[in-house]
Amino acid sequence: MFKSILVPFDGSPNAEKALKTAVEMAQTCGGAEVTILTVYRHHSMLEASLSMVRPDDPGNIDDIMRGHAKEVAEYAKSIARQAGQEQVRAFVKSGPTSRTIVTFAEEHGADLVVIGSRGMGSVEGYLLGSVSHKVTGLCKIPVLVV
Amino acid sequence: MFKSILVPFDGSPNAEKALKTAVEMAQTCGGAEVTILTVYRHHSMLEASLSMVRPDDPGNIDDIMRGHAKEVAEYAKSIARQAGQEQVRAFVKSGPTSRTIVTFAEEHGADLVVIGSRGMGSVEGYLLGSVSHKVTGLCKIPVLVV
Repeated sequence: MFKSILVPFDGSPNAEKALKTAVEMAQTCGGAEVTILTVYRHHSMLEASLSMVRPDDPGNIDDIMRGHAKEVAEYAKSIARQAGQEQVRAFVKSGPTSRTIVTFAEEHGADLVVIGSRGMGSVEGYLLGSVSHKVTGLCKIPVLVV
Repeated sequence: MFKSILVPFDGSPNAEKALKTAVEMAQTCGGAEVTILTVYRHHSMLEASLSMVRPDDPGNIDDIMRGHAKEVAEYAKSIARQAGQEQVRAFVKSGPTSRTIVTFAEEHGADLVVIGSRGMGSVEGYLLGSVSHKVTGLCKIPVLVV
């Protein structure tokens, strides 16, 4: 029934649980494709919350963040492969987490999002509601919260 | 992969959409059972929000609420049957909506909840976050928000 499943992945145990459920779901649906998305925050956004700390070369921070996000996404891909999922791709994007996930889902024609109920736990998540809550609120397609 | 799917049903278009997705899911999973739950508020809880209005015979209100909830649940059952779902049961419970759903899911050993993203729209939902948000937050099993 689902053909294209998007799994936002931040490296947390809940994201791993969501990924495994997504793979099981893909196989139950007769071979849906699984797309992994790791979102990281651009330096300028980090700076807004850490305005007292100004590094000499902010460019490096972006590179490090992107590099780390890539590692996390590749790790997710290897988990999916180990679970028997052949059709799997991993992407990395920078931006505000929930909106980036929702936009990516629309642009890539996903028909289901599978997401962990709690991620790494940011202050934003604590105060304003978790990423999973925002994604379920913003997404026009079904969202499975694991 | 899922064997027992719970669908909270309040008669809203989104609940109907959730029910149809649940039936499709049940069939994709090779014949899971679908359980419908309609929650209504007990008179004493309504009274708290409408304390200026005191009917002569509050007992009747409970009967009317329960009767209406039963009709809504039976209607849901007929939709599920029409969609080809044979294993379907419908229940009616009174209590606070989200907690009643979560407790029912636990007691009945459901392994998935499929819920509409927005229900009838209560003041509580508007102020404190929707029922679907609370259910995803409180439930220990996966919740599919449709």
